[in-house]
Amino acid sequence: MKKILILGSTGSIGRQTMDVVRNHPGKFKVVGLACNSSIALLEEQIKEFNPKFVGINYVNGQKPKLKSANKKVFYGEEGLLKLIKETECDLVVLAIVGAAGLRPAIEAIRAGKSIALATKEVMVLAGKLFKEEIKKKNRELQKKGKPLVKLFPIDSEHSAIWQSLSSGQHKEIEKIFLTCSGGPFRNKTIKELQKITVEDALNHPTWNMGKRITIDSATLMNKGFEVIEAKWLFDIQISQIEVIIHPQSILHSAVMFQDGSVIGQFSMPDMRIAIQYALSYPERIKNSFPRLSFSQAKSLTFDKPDIAKFPCLQYGFEAAEKGGTLPTVINAADEVAIELFLNKKIKFSDIPNIIKRTMDKHRNISNPTLEEILKVDVWARETARKISNNLIDKLLIYELFNSRCWRKWWTDVH
Amino acid sequence: MKKILILGSTGSIGRQTMDVVRNHPGKFKVVGLACNSSIALLEEQIKEFNPKFVGINYVNGQKPKLKSANKKVFYGEEGLLKLIKETECDLVVLAIVGAAGLRPAIEAIRAGKSIALATKEVMVLAGKLFKEEIKKKNRELQKKGKPLVKLFPIDSEHSAIWQSLSSGQHKEIEKIFLTCSGGPFRNKTIKELQKITVEDALNHPTWNMGKRITIDSATLMNKGFEVIEAKWLFDIQISQIEVIIHPQSILHSAVMFQDGSVIGQFSMPDMRIAIQYALSYPERIKNSFPRLSFSQAKSLTFDKPDIAKFPCLQYGFEAAEKGGTLPTVINAADEVAIELFLNKKIKFSDIPNIIKRTMDKHRNISNPTLEEILKVDVWARETARKISNNLIDKLLIYELFNSRCWRKWWTDVH
Repeated sequence: MKKILILGSTGSIGRQTMDVVRNHPGKFKVVGLACNSSIALLEEQIKEFNPKFVGINYVNGQKPKLKSANKKVFYGEEGLLKLIKETECDLVVLAIVGAAGLRPAIEAIRAGKSIALATKEVMVLAGKLFKEEIKKKNRELQKKGKPLVKLFPIDSEHSAIWQSLSSGQHKEIEKIFLTCSGGPFRNKTIKELQKITVEDALNHPTWNMGKRITIDSATLMNKGFEVIEAKWLFDIQISQIEVIIHPQSILHSAVMFQDGSVIGQFSMPDMRIAIQYALSYPERIKNSFPRLSFSQAKSLTFDKPDIAKFPCLQYGFEAAEKGGTLPTVINAADEVAIELFLNKKIKFSDIPNIIKRTMDKHRNISNPTLEEILKVDVWARETARKISNNLIDKLLIYELFNSRCWRKWWTDVH
Repeated sequence: MKKILILGSTGSIGRQTMDVVRNHPGKFKVVGLACNSSIALLEEQIKEFNPKFVGINYVNGQKPKLKSANKKVFYGEEGLLKLIKETECDLVVLAIVGAAGLRPAIEAIRAGKSIALATKEVMVLAGKLFKEEIKKKNRELQKKGKPLVKLFPIDSEHSAIWQSLSSGQHKEIEKIFLTCSGGPFRNKTIKELQKITVEDALNHPTWNMGKRITIDSATLMNKGFEVIEAKWLFDIQISQIEVIIHPQSILHSAVMFQDGSVIGQFSMPDMRIAIQYALSYPERIKNSFPRLSFSQAKSLTFDKPDIAKFPCLQYGFEAAEKGGTLPTVINAADEVAIELFLNKKIKFSDIPNIIKRTMDKHRNISNPTLEEILKVDVWARETARKISNNLIDKLLIYELFNSRCWRKWWTDVH
């Protein structure tokens, strides 16, 4: 029985992790849960899985109170770190949205706990630092003769690469094919991209995910982040990564070895398969999730990504190459831009502009500490907001000038 | 430096094996060569690779003499078996065409030599027996603390399955997807299949292979044999094998594990990749063979096979299920039918008929010895020939009746 602590239990990955556990009651036991603020759902989860420890990372206002009174409850960010330290478990599922996952990830490693990683920000913002923490901890654990901490990717693409790598050695990797659905707008023109609505963008063709990652999939920023993630997870060169557009999301990624043989992983687009593998590794446990049928899939298509239309992918490659705090800047600017887009303040096509301008204003720090990363994160958010406000002001003026009453006045005057 | 003995060195697989060795002079050394009767090519190969031992399995007539006088030459079938016994090597590449590969395969195992297997007849005709020989030998080797004999598949499909299996355990296999190009006639109607010429049939769309296997690929009999081969190689149930039509021959086969994850192997359709893997396993050695590009491949399509049009595939499944001497019968009848087709004595669509009728005349032997298998092989060839002659006679009478002079006479008389 593997004891599991789920951080971010009420989000999309958290809920799907619950579903995996639900399918294998004899294999996994949820010993701890933590969420941000979806207390009602948390209560339900506590009722169903009866964990020993619970964390609530409420940000503002009053401490939420749980009905389930007999639980040990940890509050706030510091509480979350304590929860990680104190919960005796075999695996931490890290599915906290955004940069908030950084400290918990490092805390888990320091506490000698293996991680099933869904929060890509850990690798995007602090890949180098995080891997160094793992190495340091493992040297210590090895000396003590204790089991080493391990890192299992949950992202479907990285899980596919990880599964494919079993067929060869690390030094034999020639190239990694990172597949990408291309998002809902892969066939739109640059002009059409300017007219994308929030509703259009939230309607992903193959994956059912959270809002931010859905928008990130539409701009291909998500794939840019995954390039950075792949670099750190698999310790490879950026020149070894090729992103290929594969709209059906059936082949989840592949590895070409130096003998010309390519090993890839397929499945129905169902995150639970990747989650379960991260939980059950090295075993593969029988489940009843939907099965892939090649003859029903009929055709799997592949294409090159169009960087001119989706520059965010290029920014991802650039940040992966340059490293330092540049990925942090992109991530922060992207989050700000998406929030504004979801609130209908900016256009879909403004998202890459805001990211690019924020990148241009940044002076990269090569080997940042966690504190520096978090500082840059704050700076980038402020900068992106300023750039966006400027953009919004200009837009307003532009719209004003184009409005009927102004035109009438202008024509009357001249 | 791996020492390699190549049996069937002048055939398609043999020559491609040479090419792999040629590409890695520091990794492999050809210590022995054997062919059937292509003496001129053999002389060239001897000149290039300078092996210690040479075998020539001349069937009739005078013993061919080699110019390269300083070689130890073994003649005939018995000579071949001696060659296998006496040649000190790490791996035997078994690429002898047809049932003639059976005794050499068993001899190699008895001599404690690992095999890279291209001759599918070994598995098709004597899969059970052959695996028992391996088990027996390995028990003996284990007792002596010596390295065990291993079996490495060379067929691209089985190599793909073997490579994919690294990602899980044997007990976790749910299903095997055996891909099949569908041959050049997959889009023809049953009527059109009757008019296929020898030239049409020898023109395989994706693979460049020997004549018999090219025709077998066109009737899907080859895939039927591969089903039997897969059963023995990977120790799985027939119900776990699904054949899927994949005309591009880029995905060479795949394995579905019980967690719903499918691992598959891709490459350009180049046999040298599978041959090299069998030679270099567990290593993957860098080479300059053509590389797969997904974005150039554009589209990989999949479909169900049409059993009504290609009944040979069904015969393969039937023989795999029933076992015993039935696969031997199919293989022999198929070889006879193909010979007649290549000599333009019968139609393309007669091939499955001849196989089916020979199968119907056979009384299956459940656990045959090698001698019984070889006897049934002879019986099946004779029977298939009789059936074919009958068919040819009927065809001649039919054509005669349809000829102009007969028609004229008939009209004149009546």
